[in-house]
Amino acid sequence: MTIARESLRWNGWGWAGGLDILGENADAIWAWMGDAFGAGALPDTPPASLEETRLPECALETSTLESLALIVEPSRIKTSAFERAFHARGRSYADCIELRSGAIASAPDAVVYPVSAEECSSILRFAGERALAVVPFGGGSSVVGGVNALRGAQHLGTLTLDLTLMNKVLEIDTESLTAHVEAGIYGPALEEQLQARGYTLGHYPQSFEFSTLGGWVATRGAGHQSNKYGKAEAWLAGAEVVSPGGVHWCAPAFPGSAAGPQLRDLVAGSEGALGIITRARVHIHPVPEVKDYRAYLFMDWGQAVTAVRALMQRGVPTAMIRLSDPDETYFFGALKSGGAGMDPSVRVCIMLVGIEGAADEAAHAREWSQAVIEEHGGAHMGAELGDSWYRHRFETPYLRDPMLDRGLGVDTLETCASWSNLMPLYEAVSTAIREALAARPGADGAQGVCMAHISHCYRDGASLYFTFAFARDLADPLGQWQHIKAAASACILAHGGTISHHHGVGTDHKTWYHREVGAPGLEGFRALKRAFDPRGVLNPGKLWD
Amino acid sequence: MTIARESLRWNGWGWAGGLDILGENADAIWAWMGDAFGAGALPDTPPASLEETRLPECALETSTLESLALIVEPSRIKTSAFERAFHARGRSYADCIELRSGAIASAPDAVVYPVSAEECSSILRFAGERALAVVPFGGGSSVVGGVNALRGAQHLGTLTLDLTLMNKVLEIDTESLTAHVEAGIYGPALEEQLQARGYTLGHYPQSFEFSTLGGWVATRGAGHQSNKYGKAEAWLAGAEVVSPGGVHWCAPAFPGSAAGPQLRDLVAGSEGALGIITRARVHIHPVPEVKDYRAYLFMDWGQAVTAVRALMQRGVPTAMIRLSDPDETYFFGALKSGGAGMDPSVRVCIMLVGIEGAADEAAHAREWSQAVIEEHGGAHMGAELGDSWYRHRFETPYLRDPMLDRGLGVDTLETCASWSNLMPLYEAVSTAIREALAARPGADGAQGVCMAHISHCYRDGASLYFTFAFARDLADPLGQWQHIKAAASACILAHGGTISHHHGVGTDHKTWYHREVGAPGLEGFRALKRAFDPRGVLNPGKLWD
Repeated sequence: MTIARESLRWNGWGWAGGLDILGENADAIWAWMGDAFGAGALPDTPPASLEETRLPECALETSTLESLALIVEPSRIKTSAFERAFHARGRSYADCIELRSGAIASAPDAVVYPVSAEECSSILRFAGERALAVVPFGGGSSVVGGVNALRGAQHLGTLTLDLTLMNKVLEIDTESLTAHVEAGIYGPALEEQLQARGYTLGHYPQSFEFSTLGGWVATRGAGHQSNKYGKAEAWLAGAEVVSPGGVHWCAPAFPGSAAGPQLRDLVAGSEGALGIITRARVHIHPVPEVKDYRAYLFMDWGQAVTAVRALMQRGVPTAMIRLSDPDETYFFGALKSGGAGMDPSVRVCIMLVGIEGAADEAAHAREWSQAVIEEHGGAHMGAELGDSWYRHRFETPYLRDPMLDRGLGVDTLETCASWSNLMPLYEAVSTAIREALAARPGADGAQGVCMAHISHCYRDGASLYFTFAFARDLADPLGQWQHIKAAASACILAHGGTISHHHGVGTDHKTWYHREVGAPGLEGFRALKRAFDPRGVLNPGKLWD
Repeated sequence: MTIARESLRWNGWGWAGGLDILGENADAIWAWMGDAFGAGALPDTPPASLEETRLPECALETSTLESLALIVEPSRIKTSAFERAFHARGRSYADCIELRSGAIASAPDAVVYPVSAEECSSILRFAGERALAVVPFGGGSSVVGGVNALRGAQHLGTLTLDLTLMNKVLEIDTESLTAHVEAGIYGPALEEQLQARGYTLGHYPQSFEFSTLGGWVATRGAGHQSNKYGKAEAWLAGAEVVSPGGVHWCAPAFPGSAAGPQLRDLVAGSEGALGIITRARVHIHPVPEVKDYRAYLFMDWGQAVTAVRALMQRGVPTAMIRLSDPDETYFFGALKSGGAGMDPSVRVCIMLVGIEGAADEAAHAREWSQAVIEEHGGAHMGAELGDSWYRHRFETPYLRDPMLDRGLGVDTLETCASWSNLMPLYEAVSTAIREALAARPGADGAQGVCMAHISHCYRDGASLYFTFAFARDLADPLGQWQHIKAAASACILAHGGTISHHHGVGTDHKTWYHREVGAPGLEGFRALKRAFDPRGVLNPGKLWD
């Protein structure tokens, strides 16, 4: 079971038909948004159609494609404009701007759908012999340029390996609570099969419906409920990888080991640079008896942040804590109502707390969490807001395409820092983004908005997730975005944050990642990469390149 | 504050004067032990004195030592027989046999005590120029040959870097609950300083009194209470490392990151091969209000193992679960009483459960754990056995030297595997050790004993810790031990266990570690090592060599 490519949007988010998340409030919301961004009446800026879009010529000679067809069944080698465009880019802001522009600078010369590790191995060997770059591709939902079809100077062409046909659940070990799964499986298919047996991985990122197990591992992704189920590097027990030269290797799945640094920790976050993740063994949990999501209101952001810290440091077993800053609290309220009844001068914060597990323990956690929250000035608002968030939690990304259709832009970026760095970092990055938005207004008098939430919490710190929206500079949209992105990224590093908590590195974070890891570390990782991929076949232009 | 080298035993465990842990039962215990091992009357086999012991000549020319003294204050460069012998080996069974034998095959040519990362850096540069090997050394308690003073074919001599003068607590971040500490600090000094501020690292390995923070990190060590505080790789937040060529690098301390594989995960378990760990940032906890250790009796080992699994998989927050198999339960009972009143045919198991934390949550965990244990047939025995274990928990290693003095041998080895592999592995390794003991009896009619416990538990599996004791083959003690070790190690790998859960790799596990990690992984790690240590200065002969 996979998702037919044609049912998906090639130049934006999700299902081809989109999803109407604004409903009957749409007109009011667009009017309010134009107002909020100082953009006035919103222009009509539709994307170029696929037919209007220029793709580079396929660089592969017919004889090369014929040779490839001796390895992979010809029906699983695709060269149509749709397949090439769909796989040309991920779904970052910069990707979408390019995909909509009518000209895509690079695309895979062919898209190959392998069905086994052996085929992956043969394709990598073939690619090495023919000097082709290989881009591993799961759901393609990267928001950092992680799957962009790039090639190095030494390459004569690019193959994208779409892994979504490798999607079987191979084994559920009910004693060890692990599952062994092919890496190309989509989120819903994985959960459907696990839950039919009474288990869950519990990994529900925003991209859940359109991303794959292998992608989650390769990018160290985080699901909304990472407080309970962990980030990918935490729930990854072991993995199988195919590297160039036909080398199959295995990152063993030991519960704990002192036998040197663990290969598993190198697979998590490797972004396709060391090999193709073909299978993963993952930790699973019984499907929770209870999923209890509540909202709490805080009159003060600083006090609310302290409450999150207390919940984590006292060990209250939450599945999720999600605390919106006053701007985000206002914005999401206004988004629902089209701005009606919302007073931007009211600076309150809403915290959502999700608890999942066995009924008795969930009740204990609920009571405990509520006591800690009330101790810090939070007021219980009941289950309605939490339930509503839960029901609609995968919908927000659908807002981007209609915004792009109306001359607007929206992007998100995220980091993670220790508690002692968190508030200074929050202030500095918010300011940096606002200043950058002001420095590059998309229209006369336009001002952007910037908001943030805390999610994915730890004993020693938390992730901060920023959203900024603005009137797009229609003459130079990429220049405008790069200006904002660079200002925010530099500020994150300067204030002790990591360049990414769960989006990954890809192309977009590369410069700052290289600074973050430092020259000796980077040399170490590059040596590791050369050992696994001596000819540089794999995913050029990302991460360590 | 460090430990004066002269107050420690150079050829055995702990304080120079030892520790009388048998007390007035000693004679009865030795008689019982001779009986239990089928060794009869125990011979007198004292170690060679330091004066009797042959050490290799110092390979360094006077001019080299003089040049070294331009970098490091001469008072911190030691070449005495005591210092060279003390630092020649760790404290593995094989190490002790050699240290007691009257001839030590290799020793550091000089022992250097740096006081700063800058000095470490200068020494590494000096060593590179002079073709010297450098062995980083903390407490020297390695039981796998991890600090043995070896050198490669290209080396003209060996320097051991004793890091115990780098022992300052630099910062306690009470907001993020982390501490920044120099890596050469001993366990007791670290806990004393943290606890004076109300905090604890909670890392209490068996070697606690005689091992250092840097050693714990380098070997991915585990403290008794790892269920709560985590293994070293879990409580390590970040680290600073000095590599050859004067390269200082930093593994950043992010609570979570998707910025590629994390350097921190390469530092944990690096065993001095990538660089000298000079500082670590670690997770700390408030000193627990309650430390509650209870014993439970099980009539059936299999059922007791299932109880451990249930405790972990339901998420009961224990600090420690320690379940002795029937042989260990019998042996430790007999050891206390000299065998009096112990019937070896009674096959019961004792499980110790430790809970640490705030009073209300500890009470909740105690009640919850007890319910799960009783559900699985465990009977509460009260706090006495648990308290006694806690009071005497660092004493067992002191038993080895008096056993070695009486013609006996004792060693331990450990692994970790998933729950579905655990019982087959337990049976197979127990059998392999017993057969190997029988195949190499130390004396006519001698038979060894083999026992095990489960400790360090996880949702997906647990660590198994084996102890075997036997009459030593006085003619070929190393051959006898290697036979047993090889049989057990091969069996561990064959049954899905890791070659070490918390002892590390060193020299003793190298062969099996290389099989465990596989050729491609090994090549990757070796490439990494070459990037950080191109001349192979650091800790030759261990881990990846």
